[in-house]
Amino acid sequence: MGKIDTRLAELGITLPVAAAPAANYVPFVLNGNQLILSGQLPFQDGKLIHLGHLGDKLTVEEGYQAARLCGINLIAQIKAAVGDLDRVRRILRLGGFVASTATFADQPKVINGASDLMVEVFGDAGRHARSAVGVPALPLGVAVEIDALVDVSV
Amino acid sequence: MGKIDTRLAELGITLPVAAAPAANYVPFVLNGNQLILSGQLPFQDGKLIHLGHLGDKLTVEEGYQAARLCGINLIAQIKAAVGDLDRVRRILRLGGFVASTATFADQPKVINGASDLMVEVFGDAGRHARSAVGVPALPLGVAVEIDALVDVSV
Amino acid sequence: MGKIDTRLAELGITLPVAAAPAANYVPFVLNGNQLILSGQLPFQDGKLIHLGHLGDKLTVEEGYQAARLCGINLIAQIKAAVGDLDRVRRILRLGGFVASTATFADQPKVINGASDLMVEVFGDAGRHARSAVGVPALPLGVAVEIDALVDVSV
Ligand SMILES: [Ca+2]
Repeated sequence: MGKIDTRLAELGITLPVAAAPAANYVPFVLNGNQLILSGQLPFQDGKLIHLGHLGDKLTVEEGYQAARLCGINLIAQIKAAVGDLDRVRRILRLGGFVASTATFADQPKVINGASDLMVEVFGDAGRHARSAVGVPALPLGVAVEIDALVDVSV
Repeated sequence: MGKIDTRLAELGITLPVAAAPAANYVPFVLNGNQLILSGQLPFQDGKLIHLGHLGDKLTVEEGYQAARLCGINLIAQIKAAVGDLDRVRRILRLGGFVASTATFADQPKVINGASDLMVEVFGDAGRHARSAVGVPALPLGVAVEIDALVDVSV
Repeated sequence: MGKIDTRLAELGITLPVAAAPAANYVPFVLNGNQLILSGQLPFQDGKLIHLGHLGDKLTVEEGYQAARLCGINLIAQIKAAVGDLDRVRRILRLGGFVASTATFADQPKVINGASDLMVEVFGDAGRHARSAVGVPALPLGVAVEIDALVDVSV
């Protein structure tokens, strides 16, 4: 059991089965040491949670949980891509999109759900650059979508 | 005539003249083997098609066609950048932005227009990571904008 | 004093102190020669300027100034990351997000504020690929957020 697998177990996080490609795109592309991950949605046990918009019916805390769940799905994809999570050298970047009304301005607090997760799981290697922006609508009506760029040893 | 040029001809796709830089930015930057492409709009014969928002006056099929057209313009830029399309080793990533009302949730079906094109043209090398998100508005009122990252041999 | 520092002085641009990380993410990650920068906001002397939406109460010129300010903050982060701005080999990409109403379609004219700055400061090395899209809302109510990818010598 790898160091990161052990850390996930300590945190009580069970990785889902990595979602299969939905179309003519793939969940990840490994290009040398750069692992490029498609945008992940807040799936939990195969179901989407926290549908809707921030600033409307969702609270920042619900958005945070949705972002954390996107992060867990990103980690599941990383594991599917490289097998051993100990190969993660650095989470380079997260791109966070938050379904937002025109007056909602706390996108950073929402995306922190994924940022905090990455540091809990990967320690300093989880500290990443990121962007957090609002969007009017996301696939399947989810509140958060997050993509990522990861440096891995191969 | 290259393998990919032949494939484009089979598909009945004529590449447009790659759009010139619109300002102090450029349509592509080649950095080692990484080709970084600026967001492309659905130009056809020098005119923009399918202006407007998904969820309002545009159908998913019209959005799909707009995304396919963005893809054709991306391929024209790739050719302008590296000359021979057979130098494409992998379409690494597409970033898809769909002008959407707050209730439109089929951004993936729209961006499939570009994803399907990449696989039709480049085969397995066309299978990419991607994100698909809604936006309230895009340059010149277009329905879709797509940027890309491509691995090329130089 | 470096060549680029001299150029900044000629332009009358004083770099701010690079903003500290706001959470479990960092303002930049240096991965080999690739410097990945988090989305920057239009801070001036520690205060945000030009809050609101394009197409509503902000003019294109105000949006342009906000984008220029995001660009100045990006340059401050680049300096914090690599010390000497003469190490910038190329601004590879800017990702521009503009808080927009559904009918505002001049995102490119807004993001030009950062694009023009990069070429003023870095010359040809400042010519970059970019995307410019509308968003309904941004962190803290700002009008513009811009992230970047830069090739640096290390
Ligand atoms: Ca120097």
